Amino acid sequence: MSGNSVGKEFVVSLFGESHGRCVGVVIDGCPAGLPLSEGEIQAELDKRKPGTSELVSPRKEEDKAQLLSGVFRGRTTGGPICILVWNVAAVSKPYEALKTKPRPGRADYTAWVKYGGYADYRGGGRFSGRMTAPLVMAGSVAKKLLAKKKVEVLAHTVEVGGVKVPRQPSIGEIRREVYKNPLRCAVPEIVDEMKDAILKAKREGDSVGGVVECVAVNVPAGVGSPIMDSLDADLAKILFDIPAVKGVEVGAGFEAARLRGSENNDSFVLRKGKIVTLTNKAGGILGGISTGMPIVVRIAFKPTPSIRKRQKTVDLEKMKETEIEIGGAHDPCIVPRAVPVVESAVAVVLADHTLRGQFIPSVLK
Amino acid sequence: MSGNSVGKEFVVSLFGESHGRCVGVVIDGCPAGLPLSEGEIQAELDKRKPGTSELVSPRKEEDKAQLLSGVFRGRTTGGPICILVWNVAAVSKPYEALKTKPRPGRADYTAWVKYGGYADYRGGGRFSGRMTAPLVMAGSVAKKLLAKKKVEVLAHTVEVGGVKVPRQPSIGEIRREVYKNPLRCAVPEIVDEMKDAILKAKREGDSVGGVVECVAVNVPAGVGSPIMDSLDADLAKILFDIPAVKGVEVGAGFEAARLRGSENNDSFVLRKGKIVTLTNKAGGILGGISTGMPIVVRIAFKPTPSIRKRQKTVDLEKMKETEIEIGGAHDPCIVPRAVPVVESAVAVVLADHTLRGQFIPSVLK
Amino acid sequence: MSGNSVGKEFVVSLFGESHGRCVGVVIDGCPAGLPLSEGEIQAELDKRKPGTSELVSPRKEEDKAQLLSGVFRGRTTGGPICILVWNVAAVSKPYEALKTKPRPGRADYTAWVKYGGYADYRGGGRFSGRMTAPLVMAGSVAKKLLAKKKVEVLAHTVEVGGVKVPRQPSIGEIRREVYKNPLRCAVPEIVDEMKDAILKAKREGDSVGGVVECVAVNVPAGVGSPIMDSLDADLAKILFDIPAVKGVEVGAGFEAARLRGSENNDSFVLRKGKIVTLTNKAGGILGGISTGMPIVVRIAFKPTPSIRKRQKTVDLEKMKETEIEIGGAHDPCIVPRAVPVVESAVAVVLADHTLRGQFIPSVLK
Amino acid sequence: MSGNSVGKEFVVSLFGESHGRCVGVVIDGCPAGLPLSEGEIQAELDKRKPGTSELVSPRKEEDKAQLLSGVFRGRTTGGPICILVWNVAAVSKPYEALKTKPRPGRADYTAWVKYGGYADYRGGGRFSGRMTAPLVMAGSVAKKLLAKKKVEVLAHTVEVGGVKVPRQPSIGEIRREVYKNPLRCAVPEIVDEMKDAILKAKREGDSVGGVVECVAVNVPAGVGSPIMDSLDADLAKILFDIPAVKGVEVGAGFEAARLRGSENNDSFVLRKGKIVTLTNKAGGILGGISTGMPIVVRIAFKPTPSIRKRQKTVDLEKMKETEIEIGGAHDPCIVPRAVPVVESAVAVVLADHTLRGQFIPSVLK
Repeated sequence: MSGNSVGKEFVVSLFGESHGRCVGVVIDGCPAGLPLSEGEIQAELDKRKPGTSELVSPRKEEDKAQLLSGVFRGRTTGGPICILVWNVAAVSKPYEALKTKPRPGRADYTAWVKYGGYADYRGGGRFSGRMTAPLVMAGSVAKKLLAKKKVEVLAHTVEVGGVKVPRQPSIGEIRREVYKNPLRCAVPEIVDEMKDAILKAKREGDSVGGVVECVAVNVPAGVGSPIMDSLDADLAKILFDIPAVKGVEVGAGFEAARLRGSENNDSFVLRKGKIVTLTNKAGGILGGISTGMPIVVRIAFKPTPSIRKRQKTVDLEKMKETEIEIGGAHDPCIVPRAVPVVESAVAVVLADHTLRGQFIPSVLK
Repeated sequence: MSGNSVGKEFVVSLFGESHGRCVGVVIDGCPAGLPLSEGEIQAELDKRKPGTSELVSPRKEEDKAQLLSGVFRGRTTGGPICILVWNVAAVSKPYEALKTKPRPGRADYTAWVKYGGYADYRGGGRFSGRMTAPLVMAGSVAKKLLAKKKVEVLAHTVEVGGVKVPRQPSIGEIRREVYKNPLRCAVPEIVDEMKDAILKAKREGDSVGGVVECVAVNVPAGVGSPIMDSLDADLAKILFDIPAVKGVEVGAGFEAARLRGSENNDSFVLRKGKIVTLTNKAGGILGGISTGMPIVVRIAFKPTPSIRKRQKTVDLEKMKETEIEIGGAHDPCIVPRAVPVVESAVAVVLADHTLRGQFIPSVLK
Repeated sequence: MSGNSVGKEFVVSLFGESHGRCVGVVIDGCPAGLPLSEGEIQAELDKRKPGTSELVSPRKEEDKAQLLSGVFRGRTTGGPICILVWNVAAVSKPYEALKTKPRPGRADYTAWVKYGGYADYRGGGRFSGRMTAPLVMAGSVAKKLLAKKKVEVLAHTVEVGGVKVPRQPSIGEIRREVYKNPLRCAVPEIVDEMKDAILKAKREGDSVGGVVECVAVNVPAGVGSPIMDSLDADLAKILFDIPAVKGVEVGAGFEAARLRGSENNDSFVLRKGKIVTLTNKAGGILGGISTGMPIVVRIAFKPTPSIRKRQKTVDLEKMKETEIEIGGAHDPCIVPRAVPVVESAVAVVLADHTLRGQFIPSVLK
Repeated sequence: MSGNSVGKEFVVSLFGESHGRCVGVVIDGCPAGLPLSEGEIQAELDKRKPGTSELVSPRKEEDKAQLLSGVFRGRTTGGPICILVWNVAAVSKPYEALKTKPRPGRADYTAWVKYGGYADYRGGGRFSGRMTAPLVMAGSVAKKLLAKKKVEVLAHTVEVGGVKVPRQPSIGEIRREVYKNPLRCAVPEIVDEMKDAILKAKREGDSVGGVVECVAVNVPAGVGSPIMDSLDADLAKILFDIPAVKGVEVGAGFEAARLRGSENNDSFVLRKGKIVTLTNKAGGILGGISTGMPIVVRIAFKPTPSIRKRQKTVDLEKMKETEIEIGGAHDPCIVPRAVPVVESAVAVVLADHTLRGQFIPSVLK
């Protein structure tokens, strides 16, 4: 059974492995005529690269996006867009020792069960966070498409290692601050505290998790569906497909479960002749369809499972308990690098649903 | 664009409206030979019916499941299984007054935008919680299929109106207690407090939300996929498709974001020759694939948006601000009735992924 | 694995069995606002009913279409449209004798292998020509949608029992003549000869096949796709899904294989400022996309396999060769009743592809 | 709307353009553990390359298959398999002159309408026969999978330029003869006559078409589905997706329309304890499911539309009638090079349906 594709109109399919020849994406369904260049894709891709600060993995991944199809003379053709990145920096040797000793918190064991030992285990294979590189490349195309409708997708770190942002930043702050600091946080005054939490864990051979928030502005009302293709459901699906995600909430989220109906309902009012809601507890989605208010989701990331500390595991060949220590260059906290990935994932779903169009198409006019 | 189906092997498609002729489901892909009767479907359906206590809507829905196709002489044929329930109790009159005045927190406004005023607004139409009746009927078939593999899916209320269960109940308790009390809670000593929270809100013309937990036991390791069809992603998708859901978390969920890697990683150990994990922070899923440990998800439900209290809204025809009061028989808390719906949704996804099979099929042997 | 649905935008899913409770269809993706009534569906359904002449089965099927969902106050809502027909006339007894003796030319044997004896064999179950009734109901909705674009789908009998139409009838003739004679033939002067061929076979306990042609006019240029969703490919797929179809050709079809390129190429010319082709050997499709010329397909139907003559078969339980004689009321020629089925199938595909829209959607403007 | 993928279990997605950087394929759903090498893929790819005789295009395409993902240490991993071929030989200049003058019989005009002038027109872009190279690469993987079940797929030329094979060759002959002669014909004594027909057309600046037959042996009974995923329907779909195909027939095909039921029905008999049919008019498929007899399909190819002769067309920019002459290296007959393409297309569908499995899976045992 296949399972590497997502979307109905804007279909994104990933391929490749962490230490194979390449990682790549095929985007099928992008309309013709959209200006698109390798440079624009590269700019997005650079946002997730490691080695940019002491907070993330020191690995050097000089990822260069190559646009292989679907673009002709600077514009999309309507055909499938294949983009790939060659793997050049992979150091596979450390993985040989771990081949039959599954790392706790990672997919080594489940991959071994499902693929009967045939999976490419080097660097986590298809289960690696590296698979988010092609997702970001797909996101760069989705963002260009959304920009035509003035839709903007902005993610930012709101919690790391237990340190939360002390206040909700404005859209302007998110737009301005996030890529200025290595935390990808929109509230500058909390950045140092977050940084300390990560570095403390790192020194102790440990790791921390955190929470990313993503806001999509200017999504018109009417995007999405009820029943089985709800916009929130499709967002949750793609977000849970990102490695290390353990929770997704929309609008007030889990907090909504503690509110009264009268507190959680967003009243409809008129502002400049437009219907808006006074509050946005719904996070911009009602009945699976956008309300026209900002779409707001929050995503919980677990702490990086690859830690230096000694851990218990089982040798799968000898079927004996054993212990492992994981070397290599891992991120003590994945959250900062997850920020552009979340943006891309959300953009892909919004592009897909936007292209699904309105339900009274011109055919009826 | 369509959007009423979910699944790849075990495909569930819903149809119908709250106050139309019927609500129903077509299940495509159920293997041949499974014993199945209307009585078994009815037994599951009865779990979600209203009017069973003062905590939920006093509406009488004498829903009778009718099995229209796909079963011959008591066993499934391999063909699509259509099951429906005729709508007999619907009282549509109150909805006429609300036709152009969207209720806050409900999909009236977004449906109006998307379907250009053509949607059936009576009782919420397709956006009604009544659409979960056919989902529960699909769940009854999924559960029978899973039972052949000894897989059991058990949901229970863990929080209502801010009142949480004081302890984690055992699987045995969940199995035994949930359908004994109207809260669908596995911890009997907290039931009265939860009940009070609901009744207090009800008296005040208001409503409360809550959290449901769902545990699936005996799911073998190896069910699910990486990348775009992760088991957790598909669970999150179907759960967000349930009306009123605002958050989903797996295993430690949002709490994992506050743990260290060394705390959140589940060590692999051997127990009776079988690989298990010492803890289950992962909630039974790593890399989108089941580990063999219980699968654990928690789902946040917002407070019922239909409340008696006066609320602000906009008259869509006159484009003027106005106020509404919602009459009719609504649930002051949807959580108890959501428990069997969550069970069904989870069962549908597990049946679908279980049928997707292993990745080294007999064709290679 | 499921397999009862077709389409991407306008998704048609069939359910039911020949002698079960009902046969029905769910259409997912029909836009909101389309006027639709049970009467219109019934009018199409009546075109395929048996018992209308001595050329077809004398069975009485008083099929009444029931519209169960997706229509509110005479217009589609944008939700799934469920339509069904209750089975009332089924006489299942004769099938018991044939239960383990597969009829040559029918799916009894392959169904038995695939579904391990669990398939509903009465009246052919899901393999019955009766499953084309829900397809015709779906076609009635597709036709209404296409009519908004002035697209018209017209099928007619061009060959029966070796008797071919002596000339190509005009669109006007097809529109006018087909439902005036029991052959569904647009060339009145050949009708008697075709009738004789059928009646002769019938008298001899035998059956004949034939060829249906279908023409779709006013399909604008640009409908369809290259590569894997070609318009001709999707037409061929749905047509081969009709029981008894053994061949499909588009435009010049098999004859094109005998032409020179210079004969088979359709020259582009201008007529009233519009680009058309001088000839239409392509049958209105180039590269999987409509040219704006009439779409022309021809479909070969095999002779009805259920014949009165004694036939060899194998008893599946005793694994012994045996013989059978098939009683019951069968069509000596299925072709006349296949004409509205072909129309419906073609309409479903055209509606689906038309809704897929152009490839430079408003999002880019 | 996307449209470059086919299949449900074994999903094949094509990308690339005739004169872009590359053409490629992603195969999603291939089971883990299948031995696979670039050499094996190359061997299949070489079968369709041009420049091998005077009967086909003299272009030199030194296509080298590159296996980019999904294979680790010589075996498939269960992940998506990406294979591509870099375009090195493309000569795009002649196409500039034709940019706004659509060639009769080709997709230039329909592509221009659908993609609003943004399609890559060089060498036909995605509408080029070159897109069959990645299909053949997918076929090479499908064939390896099928070989595990002893299924063999064999295509051969049965008609070219009006010259038909004088007799039906045996399976042994097809296996032995086809790749020995440039016609890909299994009946050696007719090869010269076919060759003459092609060369005569070539000398006259014209082209011819023909018919390919494909036989799949050892497909077990029970592969396929009724209703909307019939095996014959899926075969027809993928075959019509091959450029230049205008007709597909299964078994007796169009000839069946002229037979009596008593002649066309295949009697079931026992041979060595196995149920077989005395004849195979059905072409190995009944009710959309394989019977266990050889699957037989025939495919009509139109004459190559790119001919040297002067042709009428319309200048799309000036909207004026004009004439064109097509230079470049085109195949005077596409049929010989279509033989491996047909084999691949059929293999892809059979692999997909074989993986869909039986309908009483182990879950019920």
